[in-house]
Amino acid sequence: MELYNYFRSSASWRVRIALALKGVDYDYLPIHLVKKEQTSPEYLSTSGTGLVPLLVLDDGRRLHQSMAIIEYLDETIPEPPLLPRDALGRARVRALALDIACEIHPLNNTRVLGYLSATLGVDDAAKTRWIHRWIEGGLEVVERQLAANPSTFCHGETPGLADCALVPQIFNAQRFKCNLDHVPNVMRVHAACMALEAFSSTQPSACPDAE
Amino acid sequence: MELYNYFRSSASWRVRIALALKGVDYDYLPIHLVKKEQTSPEYLSTSGTGLVPLLVLDDGRRLHQSMAIIEYLDETIPEPPLLPRDALGRARVRALALDIACEIHPLNNTRVLGYLSATLGVDDAAKTRWIHRWIEGGLEVVERQLAANPSTFCHGETPGLADCALVPQIFNAQRFKCNLDHVPNVMRVHAACMALEAFSSTQPSACPDAE
Repeated sequence: MELYNYFRSSASWRVRIALALKGVDYDYLPIHLVKKEQTSPEYLSTSGTGLVPLLVLDDGRRLHQSMAIIEYLDETIPEPPLLPRDALGRARVRALALDIACEIHPLNNTRVLGYLSATLGVDDAAKTRWIHRWIEGGLEVVERQLAANPSTFCHGETPGLADCALVPQIFNAQRFKCNLDHVPNVMRVHAACMALEAFSSTQPSACPDAE
Repeated sequence: MELYNYFRSSASWRVRIALALKGVDYDYLPIHLVKKEQTSPEYLSTSGTGLVPLLVLDDGRRLHQSMAIIEYLDETIPEPPLLPRDALGRARVRALALDIACEIHPLNNTRVLGYLSATLGVDDAAKTRWIHRWIEGGLEVVERQLAANPSTFCHGETPGLADCALVPQIFNAQRFKCNLDHVPNVMRVHAACMALEAFSSTQPSACPDAE
């Protein structure tokens, strides 16, 4: 398999974690988002969407959207499972992952922050408040759920889809110096994940294209 | 079942479509997002997250995040299926749905547009350009995929998860007067969906709380 990704893209990191948890080897193909390599005609032609991450299967089929990629990996490589066996458990894990992937991350990615600065003329202080508003508020929603049903990882005693989403979001929160004192269960789960090789060995600073 | 939702929330409409496709009866409980009823202590206590939509099962269990709710409905009420049988097909449908749910919708919902106006002081013209940028650009990504593999609905000859996401997004695009000339396959699928009762009977103007 080939994974087109960017060391600092949290959606890319989600997929790197899932591939590591599943024990899958892959070729790491860097796409530099800040240099806008994702909008090049070559990458648009390769990807069909211009989005990163992109997983290219051995038969050439291309999958995008990190959550869809991870579900695919879980369906085709069942062990270890990244979703619980029961429908209610799966709904809980997917909701936690989407609380991050739909409510937090889209508001703080490279292109949106670029638009705030370059097009709307938002200054750095206001941009920082924007980032903190969505990350800190969004993580509070995750915290409520983890506090209501605490376990070692987001759901139970093994890492899964929600943890794949959580850890890269905390990396971003720390990079942007968010307050995280109000989410102790989130940070406890984050620490449990980062103690595992699948999370630590795939972190941005460990990537071939790290700066 | 009970569905807490708001007539104009596109995430709510996604779930209304899925419930209609599955033939499930439910109680419609309105939460007025513009009046910020979702942040009331009562709703925070009911929902645990303050998010809309919220599906309350007959045993009192609460599910949130529209995509997670629809996956749950599809797992527990198998007919008619909202996801294809094959893993690659499911990955394609989920990616299409997430292209809308993660890349377009989060940037144009009520709270984000409110923050742009009230906190960042963005004027109406600039806010309209923001909305058009993300909706028109995001739908182009969907269009490429539908054009590459055209079918009556987003994937095949029956409506599914991606259509549940697509139709409410087009409603928003039209409400905000976006240009849709560049996405003919998207609009063709939209028309096919809106010809079905499950889509037309659940549209915002047909809701009990419609204004």
